[in-house]
Amino acid sequence: MLTEPQRERINVVLVSPRNPLNIGAVARAMANFGFTRMRVVNPYEPHWREARSAVGAPELLKGAQETASLAEAIRDCSLVLGTGTLTHRKAEQPVVPLDKLAPLVTESLGRGERIALVFGSEKHGLTREDLSYCHVLVEIPTDAQQPSMNLGQAAAVCLYDLATRSGPSITGSGIAEDRLDPASKTANASKPSPTSDNLDILSSLIEEVMVAAKYSPHTMQGANRHDLRLILRRMNLNAADSRRALGLFRRILRRLRIPQS
Amino acid sequence: MLTEPQRERINVVLVSPRNPLNIGAVARAMANFGFTRMRVVNPYEPHWREARSAVGAPELLKGAQETASLAEAIRDCSLVLGTGTLTHRKAEQPVVPLDKLAPLVTESLGRGERIALVFGSEKHGLTREDLSYCHVLVEIPTDAQQPSMNLGQAAAVCLYDLATRSGPSITGSGIAEDRLDPASKTANASKPSPTSDNLDILSSLIEEVMVAAKYSPHTMQGANRHDLRLILRRMNLNAADSRRALGLFRRILRRLRIPQS
Repeated sequence: MLTEPQRERINVVLVSPRNPLNIGAVARAMANFGFTRMRVVNPYEPHWREARSAVGAPELLKGAQETASLAEAIRDCSLVLGTGTLTHRKAEQPVVPLDKLAPLVTESLGRGERIALVFGSEKHGLTREDLSYCHVLVEIPTDAQQPSMNLGQAAAVCLYDLATRSGPSITGSGIAEDRLDPASKTANASKPSPTSDNLDILSSLIEEVMVAAKYSPHTMQGANRHDLRLILRRMNLNAADSRRALGLFRRILRRLRIPQS
Repeated sequence: MLTEPQRERINVVLVSPRNPLNIGAVARAMANFGFTRMRVVNPYEPHWREARSAVGAPELLKGAQETASLAEAIRDCSLVLGTGTLTHRKAEQPVVPLDKLAPLVTESLGRGERIALVFGSEKHGLTREDLSYCHVLVEIPTDAQQPSMNLGQAAAVCLYDLATRSGPSITGSGIAEDRLDPASKTANASKPSPTSDNLDILSSLIEEVMVAAKYSPHTMQGANRHDLRLILRRMNLNAADSRRALGLFRRILRRLRIPQS
């Protein structure tokens, strides 16, 4: 079972939600399972206002943060969980069934990190670009005949799973999370992971290096940026690795920019 | 994970649903998790028609059975699970948190029984009378500040839990259910339980005996009927016990009715 401070480190992020009833339903599910942190990316303003002012709207909707981009909404999160069903495309990141997600969440919370659980718009779900910011894609184990879930119901199911399967009690210890040390942890897993904005800084720097090294032709820059974002999340760097890589690429960039004599 | 034949033995029962959108949301959640059997008790006809004819309504809504009473809707079920939150009253039957429900469901399915998962109306939930037909009350572990869930979301969470936590794989065996023999099973648990209508027949007979024995004054008959229904479900009789009790009370009744000479 998740503790209250753990729940406060789990952010529910809605990308471009449209239907105010769905926004309300997500907020309601959050309140049902004791989650309080909602962030909303680029909502359709009239509907967002309507959802927040609805009679009986949970208090947490009033405190919801609004951002212009997904990158900004998840900047301080070290584990970004995308949701959705993959019917027509292949995933570019690891896919984890919802009922197998708990160990990942428990480890991340045990390292004191923040987590984002990201839902796409009702119509299209998360775009390929949105997903490139996610460490894993969480798949709700639905029936192949009717895979796609209603937003409010998908949120309820995910939050119920997090609330009941994740957290200290997974290890059977029940001890305070700062002393949590599951036997399954690898040496690397116990070190904090970089936040999303740290990875974005590293990513931009590597892009600059590519340009300076004339590695990346102009037409390939979009595709390279996308792949870079994915690779950095797939590598499972810890925060120290990420700082070291930053130092190295800064040095490389400076050297590359020294006019050749 | 539940197998398809197991899912077909789990009936979702809606008692007096009103909002067609909620009916649709429950049907959608059923389709998402591969459940097909819906039974509806005494629905408000115009809204029931509307829900069934809605564009994109899952096929299972068309095959839903309609009954006039809850007793009839659950007649062939041997494990009846009521849902809801108890805020103002004390439960008259065992309360099981949803995330601890799986062993009970797995055992019942392993005995080849049918199960009913019963949801009350959006406004009032299940009445005390409805609950007297339930073997256990399932409680979704929601936050005390916001315990009450939207019907469609509650159904999604319950069905997700059943689909992922119950079934053969719980025992780690993965064998066909007719060979399922979890170590935890007691001798009694492996025998089939009586169906709800069998218990109702026994219950009516005991009532007749009470009247014939002048045990139950007229003013107490309602209360006694209620308690009898609860007790018979709490006793965890197997089908053979129930047949034996039926034989005994039939004999008693015949004897009581012989005019005293």
